[in-house]
Amino acid sequence: MTLKKKLFEIIFGTTTKAGKRFDIILLWVILFSVITVMLESIPQLHDKYFKEFYIAEWIFTIVFTLEYFLRMMLTKKPKHYILSFWGIIDLLSFLPTYISLFITGYHYLLVIRILRMLRIFKILKLPKFYEEGMALMAALKASMYKITIFFFIVVTIVTIFGTTMYVVEHGENGYSSIPQSIYWAIVTITTVGYGDIVPQTVIGKIISSISMIIGYAIIAVPTGIVTVEVARSKNKSLTQKNCPKCQHANDEVAKFCNNCGHDLNN
Amino acid sequence: MTLKKKLFEIIFGTTTKAGKRFDIILLWVILFSVITVMLESIPQLHDKYFKEFYIAEWIFTIVFTLEYFLRMMLTKKPKHYILSFWGIIDLLSFLPTYISLFITGYHYLLVIRILRMLRIFKILKLPKFYEEGMALMAALKASMYKITIFFFIVVTIVTIFGTTMYVVEHGENGYSSIPQSIYWAIVTITTVGYGDIVPQTVIGKIISSISMIIGYAIIAVPTGIVTVEVARSKNKSLTQKNCPKCQHANDEVAKFCNNCGHDLNN
Amino acid sequence: MTLKKKLFEIIFGTTTKAGKRFDIILLWVILFSVITVMLESIPQLHDKYFKEFYIAEWIFTIVFTLEYFLRMMLTKKPKHYILSFWGIIDLLSFLPTYISLFITGYHYLLVIRILRMLRIFKILKLPKFYEEGMALMAALKASMYKITIFFFIVVTIVTIFGTTMYVVEHGENGYSSIPQSIYWAIVTITTVGYGDIVPQTVIGKIISSISMIIGYAIIAVPTGIVTVEVARSKNKSLTQKNCPKCQHANDEVAKFCNNCGHDLNN
Amino acid sequence: MTLKKKLFEIIFGTTTKAGKRFDIILLWVILFSVITVMLESIPQLHDKYFKEFYIAEWIFTIVFTLEYFLRMMLTKKPKHYILSFWGIIDLLSFLPTYISLFITGYHYLLVIRILRMLRIFKILKLPKFYEEGMALMAALKASMYKITIFFFIVVTIVTIFGTTMYVVEHGENGYSSIPQSIYWAIVTITTVGYGDIVPQTVIGKIISSISMIIGYAIIAVPTGIVTVEVARSKNKSLTQKNCPKCQHANDEVAKFCNNCGHDLNN
Repeated sequence: MTLKKKLFEIIFGTTTKAGKRFDIILLWVILFSVITVMLESIPQLHDKYFKEFYIAEWIFTIVFTLEYFLRMMLTKKPKHYILSFWGIIDLLSFLPTYISLFITGYHYLLVIRILRMLRIFKILKLPKFYEEGMALMAALKASMYKITIFFFIVVTIVTIFGTTMYVVEHGENGYSSIPQSIYWAIVTITTVGYGDIVPQTVIGKIISSISMIIGYAIIAVPTGIVTVEVARSKNKSLTQKNCPKCQHANDEVAKFCNNCGHDLNN
Repeated sequence: MTLKKKLFEIIFGTTTKAGKRFDIILLWVILFSVITVMLESIPQLHDKYFKEFYIAEWIFTIVFTLEYFLRMMLTKKPKHYILSFWGIIDLLSFLPTYISLFITGYHYLLVIRILRMLRIFKILKLPKFYEEGMALMAALKASMYKITIFFFIVVTIVTIFGTTMYVVEHGENGYSSIPQSIYWAIVTITTVGYGDIVPQTVIGKIISSISMIIGYAIIAVPTGIVTVEVARSKNKSLTQKNCPKCQHANDEVAKFCNNCGHDLNN
Repeated sequence: MTLKKKLFEIIFGTTTKAGKRFDIILLWVILFSVITVMLESIPQLHDKYFKEFYIAEWIFTIVFTLEYFLRMMLTKKPKHYILSFWGIIDLLSFLPTYISLFITGYHYLLVIRILRMLRIFKILKLPKFYEEGMALMAALKASMYKITIFFFIVVTIVTIFGTTMYVVEHGENGYSSIPQSIYWAIVTITTVGYGDIVPQTVIGKIISSISMIIGYAIIAVPTGIVTVEVARSKNKSLTQKNCPKCQHANDEVAKFCNNCGHDLNN
Repeated sequence: MTLKKKLFEIIFGTTTKAGKRFDIILLWVILFSVITVMLESIPQLHDKYFKEFYIAEWIFTIVFTLEYFLRMMLTKKPKHYILSFWGIIDLLSFLPTYISLFITGYHYLLVIRILRMLRIFKILKLPKFYEEGMALMAALKASMYKITIFFFIVVTIVTIFGTTMYVVEHGENGYSSIPQSIYWAIVTITTVGYGDIVPQTVIGKIISSISMIIGYAIIAVPTGIVTVEVARSKNKSLTQKNCPKCQHANDEVAKFCNNCGHDLNN
């Protein structure tokens, strides 16, 4: 076994002991690096431990840079890795530090490293999590068309309500422009309700009330859509039995196969 | 082919090349016109580019006016078009500009043009979107009776809670009248919670707490209603067909009946 | 037909022409009386039309008083009417005016009259509304056990979170007592979020964040419960067939009756 | 019957008259003790009735201490009781008072006693409540994998949105550090929306709007998951039994099999 193959197993493998250990150490390094970036942003800590943070960040950056180039060299299809979702995340996990040499203020974007933490489900080899995650994903994907339509309708509603409020409040009381009023409409429809912009006129309060009730009612729509898809994905994966003849997945209560007509009770 | 017929195909048609091109250009024009109205409302931009906005708005208005009269002349049933939902939206897409010649401050209502954007689903000929949109619509329509009852109950609840708070807070602390207190009740029940009016007395806080918990609980009702209807519309239109032999309801894609093994493709 | 019988038909009847007319006039009177109370509470209107409001309120009160006593005299079981839900609402619809002769400030409670508006569904004889309303009621009733348990758990959660915040913020920053902090916890858990009391300390913000996420998550529970019950009530009333022998309601796909074993396919 | 056995029946028993009476008295004592702690925290009451509260608290503490040691002595497996969930709650119900002799400010944690109130369902022997509570628990347990994944995704989203806002608002306008900005993101995503920290820059408002819409949309996910599980637990535990002859799943109350007509009561 060559060194390259060994390294490949350590870095990409998730079944060998060395591969597992590498993955778990990597997760801890990622977690610590994210916490470091967060703590650095606290003014009191930043001023006191400026030097320590600087060193720590460069250590994390060099480690992730090395890991990135190792992965690139070891994999058979470097292009494929570089352009994959995880490849881009890996790159963005250290790039901001180098950029910060030229432009300051953006190295905080390093917290994108937290996305690498999501690999935890893959690394810990939790088949139940993986399965359920996939089912969830499938449910969301199946709802995509309806969710897109819903999103378009929400955009239309907030535009119309925002503009109406801008006209009604005469561009005053915080409704200083249409985009600003649309921001207010989004805050209201989603029931967040910061209270930084609130209607002052009587007619404005009436229109706000209507938009709140609409927001309150339409939250039911995506919930309904997702619930039905979760239920369907569930039914598909859990309450089915395969035909012994053609392997087609049938309803649990089926007596004959949907696909080939085979008698399932014998 | 007469000019009239050609124009008809371009403007109303969605299958010919010319018709498609016209629709897509129109969508872009609508989008730009909406953005123009929005940008114009920003004070800084309004002061700087007053003239440009003025010209742009009149160009958009003239284009939409022309389009409107062309549609009216080309269609066989002009009355039907004028009184249809889309006909009214088309009219409202340019009318405010003319009105603004006499009365100022209302031309912002031109953003109603954004409703025309919803035609995108029809124009892009996305059958999947159309089908899902219809299913969604059907689900909402089927829930209408229950939603209306729910709406009446919510109106009753906010009236009673609003008045109680008005009495309890003695018309002070922002609860200056019953309609104002009802506005507060709507803000609270829908969980928006601006915080512009908040209870100050002990008994007021207790009543608020009760109304919050009620609001939090009854959100479940419309969600439950819509979910069930979405599930039903789904099952009905998309996933079942009856066996001609035994009437058992099978999956839409089934080739053989689950119950009796009958060949469903013959 | 005696006068008493005639009057009974007018007041209680909903099928005769006179009875219907009476009901509809009554609904309008109720609506106007509620609006009058609301408008009276607006300081500007109150000061200007003090006399008119005073007269109007006494007219409404006398009308409702007469109606109440007529109903009491005409019905066969006056006790039953007086103690029924609607009887109590009818009484509360005029009592506050008389009380206001002795104690001021509580006649606004007359808005309880709005509850009488809910009779609209009964009066307009909309069988679809009635049926759906009953189904909704049945669904909520069936969820009652789970909802009660859920309510107890929410009370426990807000008590513990409220007290923790009181201890953590040292009784400062608005968390001036445990009941006050529990009020904050309710505002937070229900996602209302007025912002009148907000955590100031770091540990307080962490605990708040946890309580928000919990609140965000547990909203799913009542929704799930109600949805399932709505679905069940639906299934019961719509997808069932009665046994021709014993009238027992069976599943739509049943071949034999659940109750008597009768063959449903013959 | 020895004294020990008698005491055991009174304290642990829920069927004998004495046992029931003890349980109900205990519930009232717990309720009063929790209310006492709450009232004590109100500054005005605390100052006025300092002595009374002090005495009351020590009485409650001694009662609960005695009860704890009695339970410990009477049960056959003291270790099991001490380490059980209820055993720990019982201990925490009086421990803070003793600790307050040395360290002040933490005796408010006595409200943890409220958890003991949850025994009410067990004590009142409401089998319907117990059954439904178990079904609810089972539904939540079954959703645990999906909920955990959902929680991880929410943590990732708030971290990324929080940091982005910190960068975008240049650490100003309340976004003073990344943890602080993550607190803002949690307040926003959960739709609580206190309004203590709100975006001031245009780009900040755009990013906030996106995060609000995401928060508004993803609330659908846990709801969908829980609903499906509630529906499943319902079907499984409460409404079906298999036919011994043909294995068809029938309603729990069925007397004859739906599928083959077999008498299910024999």
